[in-house]
Amino acid sequence: MSMASDLRRSWLVPAAALAPVLAFAAMALARADAGKPASPLFGVTVPDGYRGWPLIAPALEGEPLNELRAVLGNDVAVRAYAGGTLPFPDGTMLVKLAWQHGPSPDFEPATVPGRATTVQVMVKDATRYPETGGWGFGRFIDGKPVDEAQHRTCFACHEARVRERDYVFTRYAR
Amino acid sequence: MSMASDLRRSWLVPAAALAPVLAFAAMALARADAGKPASPLFGVTVPDGYRGWPLIAPALEGEPLNELRAVLGNDVAVRAYAGGTLPFPDGTMLVKLAWQHGPSPDFEPATVPGRATTVQVMVKDATRYPETGGWGFGRFIDGKPVDEAQHRTCFACHEARVRERDYVFTRYAR
Repeated sequence: MSMASDLRRSWLVPAAALAPVLAFAAMALARADAGKPASPLFGVTVPDGYRGWPLIAPALEGEPLNELRAVLGNDVAVRAYAGGTLPFPDGTMLVKLAWQHGPSPDFEPATVPGRATTVQVMVKDATRYPETGGWGFGRFIDGKPVDEAQHRTCFACHEARVRERDYVFTRYAR
Repeated sequence: MSMASDLRRSWLVPAAALAPVLAFAAMALARADAGKPASPLFGVTVPDGYRGWPLIAPALEGEPLNELRAVLGNDVAVRAYAGGTLPFPDGTMLVKLAWQHGPSPDFEPATVPGRATTVQVMVKDATRYPETGGWGFGRFIDGKPVDEAQHRTCFACHEARVRERDYVFTRYAR
């Protein structure tokens, strides 16, 4: 056997072995994107990497939900808050995390997060969401969006209460 | 005049012109560092850019403080939490922000941050802080460290209650 055919074989075998791996990886990537659960009405998904975003503010939600909450924002959101920019520019994303809460096992006077309840997302895209103040909404439980009826309530409440702040409840905690 | 002396002059003039600029820059840097308020006992300062760090967890502190709180962590801290790394590696920094709180003017069931009260910092440096579990502490009000007596209480409480978690109370909120 020639050296050239040896070389060809040495490349062909790993390539043949890799083919199904590569095909699977491509499928997995496509599935991750296409299959990402999106909210009804708005098609909003949970943004990648949101858990590492800066904090806008924590909050406590009273009865009946009784949740500890924290709103995080992407860079566009943080810059808009810093500059007092209203309306928020396209690309703004806000994510509200919510947890049940209970007393800290380590320090009685403290109340700390327990089980995660919902993740709620607001995405600004004035072109895509002209009828809801430019905002798309998503409410997720265990990564799955809640039903359409619940999503119909989002904008009505934001519109009734915080229209003058571009429909955003959370103020930046300084 | 020779070409060599021309060249020498062309370098000498800008260098001479830059000297006071460089001296000023060095002074400014030294001042920014030296003048930063540092905690007694530990010499811990409020880290630059901490407000943009990822959230570790929110919390509510009951009587008598009645504060909403949020602990943020630098990249070293976030990686250690993600990997369950104990003890936390040198360079870990945690910052706890605290606010008074009150009902949201926009939505009654929600309790939201009011005036900021303290900013509290933990810095891991096993070599620098061998007597306090490798942690340096700083407690700041309006950017100024509180007194030495208060700083003497930090480690005693962390040691008594959360020694097994490398003296860190806050768990990552998932």
